[in-house]
Amino acid sequence: MNDRHFIFDGCDTVALAQKYGTPLYVMSQTYIQERCAEIRHDFLEKHPNTKAVFASKAFQTLEMCRMIKEEGLGLDVVSGGELFTALKAGTDPQKIVFHGNNKSAEECEAALKNGVGTIVADSYSELLLLNEIAGQLGQKAPVLLRYMPAVDSHTHRYISTGHEDSKFGFSRRALLVERVLEQALAMPNVHVKGFHFHVGSQLTENDSHLLAIDSLTGFLREANETFGLIPEELNLGGGFGIKYLGDPERKPLAYFTDPMMTKLKTWFDSQGFPMPSVTIEPGRFLVGEAGITLYHIGSIKKTDGGRTYAAVDGG
Amino acid sequence: MNDRHFIFDGCDTVALAQKYGTPLYVMSQTYIQERCAEIRHDFLEKHPNTKAVFASKAFQTLEMCRMIKEEGLGLDVVSGGELFTALKAGTDPQKIVFHGNNKSAEECEAALKNGVGTIVADSYSELLLLNEIAGQLGQKAPVLLRYMPAVDSHTHRYISTGHEDSKFGFSRRALLVERVLEQALAMPNVHVKGFHFHVGSQLTENDSHLLAIDSLTGFLREANETFGLIPEELNLGGGFGIKYLGDPERKPLAYFTDPMMTKLKTWFDSQGFPMPSVTIEPGRFLVGEAGITLYHIGSIKKTDGGRTYAAVDGG
Repeated sequence: MNDRHFIFDGCDTVALAQKYGTPLYVMSQTYIQERCAEIRHDFLEKHPNTKAVFASKAFQTLEMCRMIKEEGLGLDVVSGGELFTALKAGTDPQKIVFHGNNKSAEECEAALKNGVGTIVADSYSELLLLNEIAGQLGQKAPVLLRYMPAVDSHTHRYISTGHEDSKFGFSRRALLVERVLEQALAMPNVHVKGFHFHVGSQLTENDSHLLAIDSLTGFLREANETFGLIPEELNLGGGFGIKYLGDPERKPLAYFTDPMMTKLKTWFDSQGFPMPSVTIEPGRFLVGEAGITLYHIGSIKKTDGGRTYAAVDGG
Repeated sequence: MNDRHFIFDGCDTVALAQKYGTPLYVMSQTYIQERCAEIRHDFLEKHPNTKAVFASKAFQTLEMCRMIKEEGLGLDVVSGGELFTALKAGTDPQKIVFHGNNKSAEECEAALKNGVGTIVADSYSELLLLNEIAGQLGQKAPVLLRYMPAVDSHTHRYISTGHEDSKFGFSRRALLVERVLEQALAMPNVHVKGFHFHVGSQLTENDSHLLAIDSLTGFLREANETFGLIPEELNLGGGFGIKYLGDPERKPLAYFTDPMMTKLKTWFDSQGFPMPSVTIEPGRFLVGEAGITLYHIGSIKKTDGGRTYAAVDGG
């Protein structure tokens, strides 16, 4: 150690650059473990029958998957490649949530063959594919339907009018009026466990999340009236904003999750329904403030215009 | 072949997608060969003592490097990785031009050890590095100095005032007032063959190129007066614009190169200097209109807002 070197989470960054080369992403294990502890303390232990999965697209390496496993969280993956890495790291497939709005037949098959616990279906064609492949494998595909939380403006508030044009998930209209839900419930090789929503990324206020809960419970009431459906599981996605340079401090996780859980509990109690299992999917919340990148400076140049350029070995 | 399939340069694109998978870049060899023929006919054969190198950052694969070699052109590379590929494809190292504003010691050494014909030096620190490494190898580094064609507004027209703040190359002031040229000429292991400029990319008019020639000859006059220097070689870079969707047809190469060559010839004749060897570096000119990308469509979805999404397997 040299006292003029920058020390990051106990590591001499110059020594790291020399040992591993540059450009080098350096992640603080301590920071990530602290966030996992926050999730356990303020969500999993506070609210019974809950789960948390790391949205691994935020930063997926074998070692990250292993850390998440040790911390007791599951993993959300969005491609066959991410599924491969998650399984290679020893993730319990039951704790994997498989997302994606364009899953291939090969990806669906890989998810089912490997016993992935939850597949979040995004389109009717995907449901047909899952039903077919699960049938061939003699399985029942464990599915959440991705719900698009934009609803009829006459009965509910819009979260954003743009959302009805989102490419992700099923609208209330698609599920109920166009009868996707009825067809999904009738598929012999698909088991509809419940619903998923994701309102957006890097949200610093909880109002969109809370409006999405209102939209979801409005939809759930209709689904119950029509099909007697009571979901076993709900997945509230992620989007819990972090601090970027110049931003105010991030809000604690509980700022988002506590009022969502209160709203859900109140609603399920009011209907006399059992509270379903609830999952959250933090991604950048776990890793977005955890890392730095190390570069070597190569050429340094002063221009006639008075600017000084330092060229580094990464983008 | 199926008459409902799209045929590209004689190939059934559906058959290509089935054979190689998607997403798939498909390049027309015919188109690239036609552009090489245009370069030979309208530049190399029209103007004696000229060279053309493909700016391979525009599209570098082993097969592309092999085609360029067969067409008699050289290759411009900007990294150790591109140099590796060029050499692996059997490119004559003498026909390689090594660019980059942040070359590492390893890259400089690789270029010199492999006998690269031209290294375009971009900074004083790079010249020091080249002189040192060439000395260790018992060589003389064959160098062009990258000239920044923005000049003193009192004696020359600006091409763009912004250029004096460019991070690429040496200004007239750096070369003459700050005496980089004098020092480069005095380096025992560096051979200054001449100068390079590159005015910009995707230019659809030739005025910037012609202003750069004026700027360069103005600088060459001063360099000659001070050091008696007459360059052996000039490299006029690329930037010859192509047609993008909705654009008018691209200009022929000669629209750029003919008036530049006329200006240069006139100036060298007027000074009584021998005309130097002249190189051009077309990049996207060769490949930018040559290719298509094939995708498979996965999920198709209509939204409540009336939008239809077709998800493809590439970006």
